[in-house]
This record gives sequence, structure tokens and C-alpha cells, in this order.
Amino acid sequence: MNKFSHLFEPRAIAVVGVSDDVARPGSQVVRALLKNGYRGRIFPVNPKYEQFDGLKCYASVADIEDEVDLVVIGVPAKGVLPVVEAAAEKRVPFALILSGGFRESGPEGVERERRMLEIARGSGMRIVGPNCLGFANLHDNVYAAFGSITREPKLKPGSVSLVTQSGGFGYSIALACEAAGIGFRHVIATGNESDIDTVQLIDALLDDDETKIILAYIEGTRDGRALLDVGQRAMARGKPLLLWKAGVTEQGARAAASHTASMTSSYDYYSAAFKQSGIVEIREIDQAVDYLKALEGGKYPAGGGVAVMGVSGGSAIVFADAGEPAGLSLCELTEKTQASLQTVIPNIGAVHNPIDLTAGYFSASNRANLETAVRATLADPNVHAVCVNIATTGKAGSLVAAEVLGEIAGSTEKPIVIFSSAPASQVGDALAVFAKANIPVLRSPSRAAGALAMLANYRQARARVERAAAATQSVTAPCEVFPRNAQGASLSEAEAKAILAAAGIPVSRDVIVSGVEDAAVFDKMTAPLVVKIVSPDIAHKTEVGGVKVGIRTRAELEAAIAEVLDNARQKAPSARISGVLVTEMIQGGFELIAGVVNDEVFGPVVAVGAGGIYAELLGDTTCRLAPFDEVTAREMLDELKCRRILDGARGKPALDVGAAARALAALSRFAWEARDQVGEVDMNPVFVLPDGVVAADAVIIPKARTAVQPVSGEKS
Amino acid sequence: MNKFSHLFEPRAIAVVGVSDDVARPGSQVVRALLKNGYRGRIFPVNPKYEQFDGLKCYASVADIEDEVDLVVIGVPAKGVLPVVEAAAEKRVPFALILSGGFRESGPEGVERERRMLEIARGSGMRIVGPNCLGFANLHDNVYAAFGSITREPKLKPGSVSLVTQSGGFGYSIALACEAAGIGFRHVIATGNESDIDTVQLIDALLDDDETKIILAYIEGTRDGRALLDVGQRAMARGKPLLLWKAGVTEQGARAAASHTASMTSSYDYYSAAFKQSGIVEIREIDQAVDYLKALEGGKYPAGGGVAVMGVSGGSAIVFADAGEPAGLSLCELTEKTQASLQTVIPNIGAVHNPIDLTAGYFSASNRANLETAVRATLADPNVHAVCVNIATTGKAGSLVAAEVLGEIAGSTEKPIVIFSSAPASQVGDALAVFAKANIPVLRSPSRAAGALAMLANYRQARARVERAAAATQSVTAPCEVFPRNAQGASLSEAEAKAILAAAGIPVSRDVIVSGVEDAAVFDKMTAPLVVKIVSPDIAHKTEVGGVKVGIRTRAELEAAIAEVLDNARQKAPSARISGVLVTEMIQGGFELIAGVVNDEVFGPVVAVGAGGIYAELLGDTTCRLAPFDEVTAREMLDELKCRRILDGARGKPALDVGAAARALAALSRFAWEARDQVGEVDMNPVFVLPDGVVAADAVIIPKARTAVQPVSGEKS
Repeated sequence: MNKFSHLFEPRAIAVVGVSDDVARPGSQVVRALLKNGYRGRIFPVNPKYEQFDGLKCYASVADIEDEVDLVVIGVPAKGVLPVVEAAAEKRVPFALILSGGFRESGPEGVERERRMLEIARGSGMRIVGPNCLGFANLHDNVYAAFGSITREPKLKPGSVSLVTQSGGFGYSIALACEAAGIGFRHVIATGNESDIDTVQLIDALLDDDETKIILAYIEGTRDGRALLDVGQRAMARGKPLLLWKAGVTEQGARAAASHTASMTSSYDYYSAAFKQSGIVEIREIDQAVDYLKALEGGKYPAGGGVAVMGVSGGSAIVFADAGEPAGLSLCELTEKTQASLQTVIPNIGAVHNPIDLTAGYFSASNRANLETAVRATLADPNVHAVCVNIATTGKAGSLVAAEVLGEIAGSTEKPIVIFSSAPASQVGDALAVFAKANIPVLRSPSRAAGALAMLANYRQARARVERAAAATQSVTAPCEVFPRNAQGASLSEAEAKAILAAAGIPVSRDVIVSGVEDAAVFDKMTAPLVVKIVSPDIAHKTEVGGVKVGIRTRAELEAAIAEVLDNARQKAPSARISGVLVTEMIQGGFELIAGVVNDEVFGPVVAVGAGGIYAELLGDTTCRLAPFDEVTAREMLDELKCRRILDGARGKPALDVGAAARALAALSRFAWEARDQVGEVDMNPVFVLPDGVVAADAVIIPKARTAVQPVSGEKS
Repeated sequence: MNKFSHLFEPRAIAVVGVSDDVARPGSQVVRALLKNGYRGRIFPVNPKYEQFDGLKCYASVADIEDEVDLVVIGVPAKGVLPVVEAAAEKRVPFALILSGGFRESGPEGVERERRMLEIARGSGMRIVGPNCLGFANLHDNVYAAFGSITREPKLKPGSVSLVTQSGGFGYSIALACEAAGIGFRHVIATGNESDIDTVQLIDALLDDDETKIILAYIEGTRDGRALLDVGQRAMARGKPLLLWKAGVTEQGARAAASHTASMTSSYDYYSAAFKQSGIVEIREIDQAVDYLKALEGGKYPAGGGVAVMGVSGGSAIVFADAGEPAGLSLCELTEKTQASLQTVIPNIGAVHNPIDLTAGYFSASNRANLETAVRATLADPNVHAVCVNIATTGKAGSLVAAEVLGEIAGSTEKPIVIFSSAPASQVGDALAVFAKANIPVLRSPSRAAGALAMLANYRQARARVERAAAATQSVTAPCEVFPRNAQGASLSEAEAKAILAAAGIPVSRDVIVSGVEDAAVFDKMTAPLVVKIVSPDIAHKTEVGGVKVGIRTRAELEAAIAEVLDNARQKAPSARISGVLVTEMIQGGFELIAGVVNDEVFGPVVAVGAGGIYAELLGDTTCRLAPFDEVTAREMLDELKCRRILDGARGKPALDVGAAARALAALSRFAWEARDQVGEVDMNPVFVLPDGVVAADAVIIPKARTAVQPVSGEKS
């Protein structure tokens, strides 16, 4: 835990705010440290007491002669700042502030938090909290916490570390894990995250040898790029990062804003960051439990082919129902496998997938048959994982299954998962054997399918993230987009298209002409053409007769130029006319919309979606954080519901998906390089043609100056 | 249980297939009956024994002198038929056949099952099974079952009855319910359902006073209409019917076909039947548990407004995340409510929704405040239900919450649900108090939201089903569609449109003319017009120049008729020409596709969806079982993703949704009345216009003769 080692393995802790009232956070902290056998020194602080729980009690932090690694502050909000000052003066490296009454509680609290940070920064002291439950280091018995973290049941030491913005809800996840036998390394509730935040803690946990898997609950982050980065580093370090992002719906996001004052951003951007880093998203307590169990097994299927075997046909159907949408399939078994199974499965069973072992198969007399059946199935090259449904099988049969499978598991790299529904009171022995063999036991076939699908996806994500990271390493210097145009106005269609073309995005060819005398441009362009009046004062060109389409000859072009100029002069006599835009008209293909949003939290994000009113209503769009490579761009296109149309649905020609991917990757590079200047890019429509891609219209909007500055005093 | 009373409350049971081998099903049945205190007489049957477990053992069923209500058969498949014959001869009213080796096991088994049914029908004997685990009547200690049903833990008596096609998986659901404290009335595994099926059993359970809620797991039904009917009757009787339909994906359905040999039909039809009957669909074991807990509360929110209160802000956000997509909202609280809350909630809390009671609120000293807060919230007219997040609150605090809420629950019709994550080992006392007060405790905020949403939807469904049932009571006589055309050929566009128009569906106006001399029809039609060559020998009219569009004058019509006739004579000289179809061309509006499929299992089903390639790729469609009323038709349209376009998205005029609903309802009446003749109807496109709706093309396909006949020997 490198730079945070004095925080999480403190040699001495001062606790400010102890009292005879056992409910007071400070009192709870001291008692939790004592009860759990913390090995460092404890300095209770309260001027009213000489002693507290047998320990010498100090009048103030300043009075402590010895060095202190961590000061825990549990006094009411109004009393916090003097304690922070004293700790800063004493050069204490870390403060944990449990007290509420800061940013979450209104203007006075905002100012209090700002002042607190100012004091801490003056001495280099780092802060966890305020408004949090604290943390526990299970391996070293450091319980710098109050409330549920210190109550029964005590968490077991283990290899999962939990970081949670919400102490109450995060600890609900921890309790469910505990009930399922999962052990913890660190449990950290971060509260307001005035200084040290979830992302920084995850980063530190990646260097903690005892932490193998990280679980986090967040309502928001102030730096989406840091989240992406830490996710990618977690993947590189081989430590799965499970993340619950709450506040995903409109109502949820509103509740988040009023609850933690954390900055929340569009869920789509989080979703993109998860895809680009291999962060495993969780959305339910039981899902966290299942995924942790499966990840502790440490085996990842090489594909989606699953063999389902067991004594409950219904369970196999339920597995398939849940597995198919998640990317799993009940694979075909080879003839060799089926022949092997035939020798050990009764005739009324089934040797195809799902494999019906027949009722009562899990019994002591059948041990050798079961072993042969499972080994044959695992040896099948189509099988990437095995799910064994022991379902309601009782004590003796479950134990046989556990012993046989436990032994086999040691000699295969393919994951085995179990569905068992008998209560632990009956099959506890079997559960213990499964646990020892790191074979996850799930409580429904759908949950078994969910856990296997996650493992398969994680393996895929690892390859994807490694490739994408290598592809986007060389990022060029920032580019200048608005050199002549620094007043904050958007670029015109022609200007925007010129810049995007320079960035490598094919755009429809435009020429701005002054009048009919320039109609010779016809010879350099490909008909049909479109002409549009260009004027800063005419917003709706069609309404003044300022647009003519379908121009096929030079004569028609001359007439069209004359007509739109004439119409503009008559219908908008006071408008300044900059000229007439002559554009090649795009025909056929499929219309996409693509663009960039330069988000305050996530930076430049590239979105692409299907065009047309219907697609827009459906929100057939996806996005990624810029920059990204062509493979990623292709994955974006693959996510769109309209994807099959690009392949030439209904006998139409296949469209140039490769060119579309290249254009998106180019847009993402541009978005990244121009991130200091560009707020938004809209390309609508972008035609994907049988051969190539063309943006037929484009707008570039500068970054608003207000958005560049952090909100005063709110975020560090 | 009326007609099944001798099955489920038998006065005497013969068990055929007892043996010294304790694992044999027959032996298990006798022991389960004895162990559980069955009060009727038991007659073990096996010619090898004089006695079995202290009971007189009979050589055959025929040797039993006394009357027998139920014969349970557990002998191997080959020995079953003689026993069935003996039972039929003795006029035993019911047989339960546990043995496998019937329809599920290949051709020999199919024939065995057919013969078995034949014997049974000869004497009027009814059969449960074969290939099943049997059943248990928990209130009367009738355990006519083997395997998991007879093992520990024993289910508690209660008010839920379970019917399951898969004994193994169904009992997995029962075990999860048992662990959550839910008690059962009947648990019935139906296996192959050769005779008595799930739907018949549900029907009988509706008349069982002890059954309050019915839970069923099916992989398929052979009569979708019977399922719809029993669902509607369950709703009318006020007994919620929870149904898990497995085999919903392609793979799941394939697994179902190979597992139970049940007929499976498209999941969409099941989904329609659920909507039209108020059957509550379940898809996960925990969901069944949660829903049963919530339904046992017996209170249904009048709307989606939920007040969320508690000590964990994160939990409230998670509730909102799950609740919003399910139709719930964190409602606004009135000023009066907020003022009341202000008096009993600390300043650092929140009196808006979600209500933050602040940490430690659930304590003995706060009992009166908590009561005031909850009562004030329940009194708010915007609040239809309350979710209280006690989250990780420990033993003492949880008990205070349970006692206060338990008392309040008795005096409100609004449901209260609890999220608690502390383990039962800590908060068991509180859980007992909640259970006694019928307040469901859920293990995550999302599950609390899911349960409340189900309750709200159930209440809505009740109103919907009652209304729709009243509206479709008067069904007219079957109509004749193919009187002149009995050869099984499809109807031509003109014929189909004439029939649909007579059924009340607006169609585009067609006239078939012979040649230019008939061009006077122009005066009776509204231009623009379309002409199409009509010939049984020309499939692709456009390719022979047989279609002309956009005809605006009588002269143009004359020219067009001449041209298509001329083109056809030149390019298809041998084709028989029936004439030229003159049609009004429809412009504007939005294209839908509507049609009828006369399904073998569900009968006529009406589907409607968005037209166009994009919508078709997305499958933006929905369906209902015919017949149905206009309100139902409108609900169908409301389900479509394109619905907003019909309201006039992007400044376009609103379209005539009412006319579209009327046309769909008319189509559904036609589909029902013509169900013996019509196999399929396709109307594509159907234009929804600002004023009215028009089917611009239509095909009617007769019902295939093979589909009318049941598959020989397979289904009764």
C-alpha cells in the first residue's frame, strides 16, 4: 500500500472524541481497536478524561509526545477544524474524519470542508472522509471505524478489498459476502472523499500483495479518466475490479446528487470506461457475491461453450435461458465424448448437451462413473466450462459430487461451477469441500450462467484492453482548431468539414462560390449536387428558398446558384450573403450520426448511432472515451442494433464498415488532440456507402470557458 | 379440490413397487407416508413380501379387498402397464406413476404411454405422471412422493401451492421458499403430464380454500387457451398465479423439447397470455421468494409512488435505480408531510424523498419519532407504498424498527417493505416480528423495488383483465373465408382486402379493370393512384413493367393501364392476364405491419409492429391472443418502441392511434371468428395517417390441413 501504508498499517492512532457515551464514534473506534487486537499504540483524546478504557487519555493531539500515524476524528462538525489544525501542526500524515456536517449538509458545511482541506494541504496531511464509517484492515486488526463495520458478524480475513462511497450500503454487500464465506483484506468507507477518493484507493490496493480482487461501490467520480486508467492498470495487474455505479437512472442520479454531493455524470460514459478497461460492472448484491466466488476460482473459460450436466433437466433449461443472452451456448459434444459418456450414463439418460446423468447419479456406488463422465466432458475441445447441476441432491450425494469434482478441479484449467439448492444445513460438508477446491456453488442455474458468462467476458476483455492500450499509446500533440475564431462561435459547415477532413475523416466535397460565374466548379465535382445559401444571418435556408438539390448539369447549377441568391435577396434583403455552398449530394448507403462530447468528468467521448427519426427515438447509440483504435471503433459499430443493415440486409449491398471504423477512430484522435478547444462535434448525417464513408454535414462547437474551470472550492 | 379430492386427500393408497432397497421409489413413498403421519390406509404391493414396514403387503392391486383412492406406481417402465390394468379393473379413480421410460425416452416409451392412457380412459381412471417425483399435501401429511420432496428439510404447511413440470428444479424453488419462511399447501410434480396437466391442477387449486397463492414452473403447455383461461379465473378469484415459463431462448426451448417432450411454443405467445390474464411471470428463484413474501402481505399499492426512508442513502439510490425502470418513482412529499417529518428528523437528515433518518435513528429512545415519521409518510396522498431501509442496522435497532412498523402496518392499506442486510443470526427477533406483521423483508434495495413494482402491476392487471374480459364476452359465430377457394390456395390481394374490409378494417381502395375502357373509375377514386398487372403467372410485377405509380389524371390512368398491359404481353407473352388493379396510393403517415398467426397451441394471435427494414431487424413488435378489445389494442401500440412517432415526433402531425387500435381489435375479432379456416393474415404495410388507418396490402393464407389434426397419439 506504499504511500498509504501509514494510513492502513498505522503504528500509532490518536482518536479524538472518546466519551462515556458508548454510542459516540470515537468511543466505538477505541473499543473496536482494543477488541480486535490492534497491535499499535492508541491515544484517546478528550480533555475531560485522564483515562479511557484503561488507556491514558490526552487533552489534545498536541499533548501526545509520541509520533502518530493516523488521527481519527469523531467530534461534532464544529469541533473538527481545531483538531485538524493540531494534527497538521504535529505533522500527522493521515486524518480519518468520521463526523458529518460538511459538504453534504449545505453552504456552511461546504465552507468548513474547504477550510479543512486548506489546513491539511498546508502540512501535506491526507484525509479520508469526512462523513464516513472509517475502515478496517482485516489482516492487521486495524478497526478505525464505527457502526456496522465494528459489529457482529466479524468479517473473515481474505483477499477481497472493498472501497465504498456509501458505508451503509457498501457494508450490506460485505455482509452478504461474509455469509457466502468470502474473506476481506481492506474495507474502506470513503464518505465525502474530500481528499483521498475511491480511484486513488483502488490504485493503492493494486500494489497491496494481499489484495487479489477489488470491489467498489461509487455514486460518482470527479475524474472519469482516472477511473479508466485505474481500471486498465487493474487489468494489467491481473486483479479483477468489480464496480457498482449507483445513480444510473434519472431518479437514482438525482438521489445521488442530494446524498453525497458527488459529481455524477452520464451513465453511458461510465459504461464506456468499463468496456475500455475491463472493469466488471455489478448491479445487485447477490451478483457481487456470485462474481467474487467465481473470480476466486481463478479460471477463465476460453470461449462461451458450456457443457451442462446433472440430475435436473429443468435446471439445464433454466441455465440455457439465462446463458444464451449472456453469450454462452450449450456446445455440441464430439462423438468421442458422447461415446465415453455412453459407457457411464444409464440408457434413460442423455449423452448430448445438456447431459442427463439421471436421478440418483450422485451416489457413493457411482463415484467412478461420475469421475469418468466429468473428465470426458472436460476433455472435449468444444467445452470451455462445465456446469454441474446437483440441484436438490441431499447430504450424501452432494458430498460424493464435491469429492469427485474437487479432485478433478485440480487438474483442469477449465472452470467448473455448481448449482445446488439444498440448504447449507443439509449439504454443509459438500459446500466445504467445494469451497476448499475453489469451485463456486451458485444458488440457481441462472446465477451459475451469469457467473460463467462474467468469467468468459473477463478473459475477452483482457485481450481487448491489452490490444487497445498498445494501439493508442502514441498520442500526438494538441491541435489548434479555433485559431482565427477565438470568440467562442461555432464553426460553419464548410470550416468544420475542412478541419475534420484534415483529421482524416472523409467529408462531402464543398466549394463556396460567389455567383454563377463560378459554375465551372461543376466540372471538378460529381453530380448530383446541392447548393445552399451561406449567410450568418439566415438560419433556416429552406424557408427563404436557399437550398436546391438534385443538380445534374452545369446549366442546372448556374440556374440554381442564381435562384438561391435571388431568393435570399428578395426574402431576406438585409442578410449578409457570404456566397453559395456547392456540395456533392450523397445517395444510397445507410445514415449514421457521429459526434464528440467533451465531458467535464470524462473528457472527450465519441458517440455513434443510427440516423433517422426511428433510430434516434430508440437511442441506438454507443460511445467510447477518446482516443481509441479502429478495432474499438468496429466494436462500437458491432454494438449498434442497426449493425446488420450495414452488412447488407435484405439483399442490399454490404456497406463499408471498415471505412466507418477508420473515420470513428480518426474522430477520436481529433477529439483527444483538440480536447482543450473543442466542446462538441456533430456529424449528421454520416453516410456509410458500399465503398467508403462520407460526413455530409458537420458542426464544431468550442469548449465553453466556464466548463474549463473547476467549480470553486468544490473539488480538488 | 373437488374432482381431485380423492387424489390429494386419498382415504387409502396402494403403493406398487416396494422393496428392501430403500432407494426404490415405492419404498420411499411408503416410508414418507408413515414418517409424516398420513392418516389413511396404506397398502404396499409386491408379490415377494408378506409384510412391508409392519404393513400387510399385497401380491397385486387386485388382491386388496378395500376401496383404494390412489395407486402409486414405482415399478420399472416395463412393469407399469399390468399394474395400470389391475388398477383400472378395480376402478381406482387415480394413479400416480413415478416411473420413467415413457414419452421422454423414445418411440417405445411413446407407445407405452399411449397404451397406458388407453387403459386408464377405459375405466375413467385419471393419471398424474409418468416420470415424476409425486406430490405432497402438507396440511394432511399425504406424501405420495419420493426423492427430495421426502427429504429434510420438511416444508412447513402454509398457503402456497406449487405445481411443477420439473420435480428437481421445481423443488429447488420450494427449498428456497422454505428457507425464507414460506409455507406450502400442495407441492405437485407433474412429469410428462400424460393426462392431468399443470393447467388442470391450477384450476382445481383455485377451488381449494387452503391455497391462497399458486406457483407453477412449466416448460410448455399443450393448450395455451386453457392457460389464458385459468390465469383469468385465478385473477377473478383473487389468487395470484406466479408462473415460470422455462425454455424461452432458442437453446432453452431446444433443451425443453429434448427434456420433457412437452410442446413448446413461442415465448411471445406466453408473454401475451400473461398480460391478458394477470399471470405474474417469474424468472429467478429469489424472485419467486420475494414475490411470494410480498403477495402474502396482501396489500397492493394504488400507484407507483414510493417513499423511501432509512439510514442508508446509498440504499435509496439503489432502490431508485431498480425502481424507475420498473415503473416506480420516488414521489414528491407534500409540504404538510415534510413539516411533520421536520419535527422528528435531525437537521442533518433529509425530509424530502428519499427521507434520510440519519444514522442510529432506529433506537429505543427514538421509538416515538420513528412512529411519527412513518405515519406522516403513509398519510401523504402521493405515497402509495413505503420502503424502509434498515440496511445493516443491528439487533436492537432492527427490533425497534420491526415493533414500530409491525404496529403501524395493521392500520394502513399501503404496503410497507423492508430492506435489511444484517444476517438472521443477528436480527432474527426483528425478522420474526416483521413476519408476524406480514411485512416482507428483502435482501437488497433492488429486490425491494422489484417486489413493490410487482404488487403495483398486479393491481393494475386486475383492473385491465376485468375490463377486457367484459369487453370480449360477445363473440359472434364463425365466419366463412374460403367458401369458393377450398383448395388451400392463399387469397389474392384484392380478395383478402375485400374480406378484411368486410371485417371492419380500412383497406386501400382497389378496382380491377379490364383495360383502358374502364378508366372512368378515376372519377370515383382519389388520386394519386397506382396500377398493377394482375396475373396468377406473374410473381414479380415490377420486373415486367407491370406497376405504375403516382397517377394523377384520368389521361395518365388510361396511359398507365395500356402500358402495363402492353408490357406484360411483351415481356410475359404466355401469362394469363386477369386484369389491372387500380389502387389509391397512400402517402404520409407511419407504416405498421399487422397480422395473425393461428398457432397450434395458442390459437389465433394478432401481432403488430413497426414497418420498415430497421424496425423489422429490431423486432419492434408485440402480440395478443385474439379476440381483444380496443383498449387492449391501444396497450399493444403503447408497447411499441415507435409509439412516440405516432404522437407526432419532431413537429410532425399526430397520427390516428385510435383508428389503428380499432383496426387491430377488428382484426382480432376476425381472427377469432375465422380461426377454423385462416392460418395466417399479413397486412403490410398498414399506414397510420393523421386521420384514419389504411391497410395498403394484405394476404390471407388458409390454415394448413395437417395443423388442424392433433399429432397422432401424442396429446389428449
